[in-house]
Amino acid sequence: MKKGFFITLEGPDGAGKTTQLTRLADAARQMGIQVVCTREPGGTPVGDAVRRILLDTAYSEMVPLTEVFLYAAARAQLFHQVIGPALKQGQLVLCDRFIDSTLAYQSYGGEMDFSFVLETNLQAVSHRLPDLTFVLDIDPSVGVERRGSGTADRVEQKALSFHHRVRDGFLSLADKFPERIKVVKGTQSEDEVFAVIWNQVAPLLEKLR
Amino acid sequence: MKKGFFITLEGPDGAGKTTQLTRLADAARQMGIQVVCTREPGGTPVGDAVRRILLDTAYSEMVPLTEVFLYAAARAQLFHQVIGPALKQGQLVLCDRFIDSTLAYQSYGGEMDFSFVLETNLQAVSHRLPDLTFVLDIDPSVGVERRGSGTADRVEQKALSFHHRVRDGFLSLADKFPERIKVVKGTQSEDEVFAVIWNQVAPLLEKLR
Repeated sequence: MKKGFFITLEGPDGAGKTTQLTRLADAARQMGIQVVCTREPGGTPVGDAVRRILLDTAYSEMVPLTEVFLYAAARAQLFHQVIGPALKQGQLVLCDRFIDSTLAYQSYGGEMDFSFVLETNLQAVSHRLPDLTFVLDIDPSVGVERRGSGTADRVEQKALSFHHRVRDGFLSLADKFPERIKVVKGTQSEDEVFAVIWNQVAPLLEKLR
Repeated sequence: MKKGFFITLEGPDGAGKTTQLTRLADAARQMGIQVVCTREPGGTPVGDAVRRILLDTAYSEMVPLTEVFLYAAARAQLFHQVIGPALKQGQLVLCDRFIDSTLAYQSYGGEMDFSFVLETNLQAVSHRLPDLTFVLDIDPSVGVERRGSGTADRVEQKALSFHHRVRDGFLSLADKFPERIKVVKGTQSEDEVFAVIWNQVAPLLEKLR
């Protein structure tokens, strides 16, 4: 039987992923469950070093294929160093972005071949997909507003049309994997979004107590 | 018809790859041929940043799968930014290490699945293998001696048994791809090694003049 439970939060920056992840972790811990929170790209020293390359605006010449492999590298390290071992110990793993971000950004957004990106990333995680994924769906222009006026990184700097393809990508992924991926309206209040998520998660966590 | 000509030099550190690459470049330029010299991992700003991660002794926890993807990332960038464009312009491209190093070190040395490593890297270079590859073959213990007493990087630090598997890997690759890969005894003098290489290369360069 599969051990542990693996939940990922997906959606654009500014959709509220980090807030919801923290609330989810707190609520699960109150049930007495051991929780590991992590994020992508990064979550390990090697992954953080890769993350710095991926987000550095100095590397505007980076080709999409290089991006795919860098994300796969960070993901392989995170999966084998953190996520896999925690699941083996029966823990709840919460991850801010995972394989679906790569599919949405590199394949739907960056127009890289879907099967190639999926296959490469399945290799990176030894074919262990999340048990449940929530896409916090917001209009790309709302995301830009919520992020405020700080400096944009290399991904954020891309055109709004790119971010619209990414949003459509997340919605297409939810159509493709309806059992695993749930879309939550990100324009609701924080409390409303959390209620939607928690209603689906709480019953599934009983087996981890 | 295929344009340009693509030669790679392979073998352990200390085998004389850089020396031979420089001599090859000089001799080709004297024939009036345009030459691009590069190396792996690295050869681009993105690739150099990836190279620093790969060789950093601080990352001893790096899993072999992460290594495969990082090398593929650096290679994809080098191929699409430097090698591919130069070949399209009909130039001679000389590269210090390429896809065969990954196969020898990660698959034969690190025991990663051969087909997976090959397929991933064929994707990275859009299936464009070198036209000719020279493996400078030396006993691993001779390589260690030739490198001198400087600080060893993360790859050099591995056990001698690893480096023996790498050497056997290069020789197996030459058996597998006999048309493309030629083994040259690296224990000969610099002049002797160069004569062996140049005798095979010179006639093939006529079409680039």
